[in-house]
Amino acid sequence: MGGDAPIAPVGADWRRLFDPRDWFLEPCAEAGSLFGLALESPEPLHDERSAFQHIQVFQSRHYGRVLVLDRILMLTGRDNFIYHEMLTHPVLYTHPHPRRVLVIGGGDCGCLREVLRHETVESCVQVELDERVTRVAERWFPELCEANGDPRATLRFEDGISFIEQAGDASFDVIIVDSTDPIGQAARLFSRGFYHECRRVLGEAGVLAVQSESPLIHTDVLAGIHREMRAAGFPQVSALQFPQSSYPSGWWSATLAGGAKAHKAPRAAAPGRNRPVTRYYNSAVHRGAMELPEFLARRLAAD
Amino acid sequence: MGGDAPIAPVGADWRRLFDPRDWFLEPCAEAGSLFGLALESPEPLHDERSAFQHIQVFQSRHYGRVLVLDRILMLTGRDNFIYHEMLTHPVLYTHPHPRRVLVIGGGDCGCLREVLRHETVESCVQVELDERVTRVAERWFPELCEANGDPRATLRFEDGISFIEQAGDASFDVIIVDSTDPIGQAARLFSRGFYHECRRVLGEAGVLAVQSESPLIHTDVLAGIHREMRAAGFPQVSALQFPQSSYPSGWWSATLAGGAKAHKAPRAAAPGRNRPVTRYYNSAVHRGAMELPEFLARRLAAD
Repeated sequence: MGGDAPIAPVGADWRRLFDPRDWFLEPCAEAGSLFGLALESPEPLHDERSAFQHIQVFQSRHYGRVLVLDRILMLTGRDNFIYHEMLTHPVLYTHPHPRRVLVIGGGDCGCLREVLRHETVESCVQVELDERVTRVAERWFPELCEANGDPRATLRFEDGISFIEQAGDASFDVIIVDSTDPIGQAARLFSRGFYHECRRVLGEAGVLAVQSESPLIHTDVLAGIHREMRAAGFPQVSALQFPQSSYPSGWWSATLAGGAKAHKAPRAAAPGRNRPVTRYYNSAVHRGAMELPEFLARRLAAD
Repeated sequence: MGGDAPIAPVGADWRRLFDPRDWFLEPCAEAGSLFGLALESPEPLHDERSAFQHIQVFQSRHYGRVLVLDRILMLTGRDNFIYHEMLTHPVLYTHPHPRRVLVIGGGDCGCLREVLRHETVESCVQVELDERVTRVAERWFPELCEANGDPRATLRFEDGISFIEQAGDASFDVIIVDSTDPIGQAARLFSRGFYHECRRVLGEAGVLAVQSESPLIHTDVLAGIHREMRAAGFPQVSALQFPQSSYPSGWWSATLAGGAKAHKAPRAAAPGRNRPVTRYYNSAVHRGAMELPEFLARRLAAD
């Protein structure tokens, strides 16, 4: 595509025709790839350094607003619906009656909003380390934060691992880990010790869902998550895959883990007007997302 | 991702740190996005202007070799298996006994190779406009061309539309259209008149498969293909979606169309050693790929 390309292709005089300042550009070192979005202006709409990270918001030309943490793209207005729906609805439709939900990370509040679309949910606690991410989201992505005032929602700003270590046994039905990549602070959210605590806090019937990187370029990470989850005592572990055009490779995954009594197959979505309105998720898509490509199924079975 | 990014992020002195000549960069004008691959060298391995187009091959750092036509990325060594498998195996496992197969376009011969993995296939005719694409593929992508010498294969270099206009009624069981984007020469391969000719050449039991662009950023193109196929007399039209990390949005689609007697659901893959070895496709993935996200299902049903 790109017949009316605004910038010059290989072979032209790049230095004259291409000004990288007009783009948000994110290299992915491990894949040797680059993703870019044309910006309305090189000046960010918002730019601050919180106690934890550099938070920026840009206005793109065709992808809406873009949230960037430490120069890594977190979400765009155009395609975050796929990620947020696939990190929340599959796990909520796997548990037979999810009442008590915990979101670790997820400071943009997109997961919280999707969770609270479910009528069975009586409480949803969001534990985000950096309060500034949520305050920035409230200002620049108000659509993601429209459920923040729901009486069932509790927003806490503290370390997710400390929170879960102090939580009671079997005190949540569903835990959703909406983390950044497994580097820096977030690496601990991909560890066996953390999964072991989740297992305790969920009990035998609870289900855990975590974002688990790209099936194509992070196959080893995905396999490692499966291995550590099983080692932490989850007998049921399964991956779901879905497109996410603004993340490296355009292809992303979630991994679900359940105890001995956890359901694995999705129950049907509630019929009629109480069913959450979705743009990506439906029951058939849920089942389809669990059918893994040959190379991935073989890799996950090998460990 | 990209913690060890080799190039500078937004806000740095781009002109000093980022040299676009080290990258293959492809803008997608209609999405305001950019995809890039780090190159081993800015010098192409191959660079020629055929009678029809500019053909280039680059050596990327992590995606293998890259075939570029008129500055648009056609395939990479790393991820073309997904596209080629999903354009061929679903249609070949939909027809109950595919014997006579026609590939329009597909000069890189990747589809031809996948087709000839099926033992039922007695002949496969590939009709590519530009012989130079195939000759370049034979030299630089020999793995895609390993079936070119199969006695069941016929390689023709001529206009696909003229070929199909002269083909007999019900003379093929399966037609696969592995075209470039619907601009320039290739636009005619997305027209009602072309689909009408395919319908005639396939008869009542035959099945057509075409590449049908990105579900996310070309939703209107995909809906138009469905509309034109139905108008051309195909009562059964269905889309399949799959990841393709090196195409715009990282998400792509194929559309299948069949006559009144065509099967719609896939038959099971042949068991045992005669089953084609695949890296992406399997029967469950085939069914999963047909489960469309809500927004796409609604859009395709609206026409």
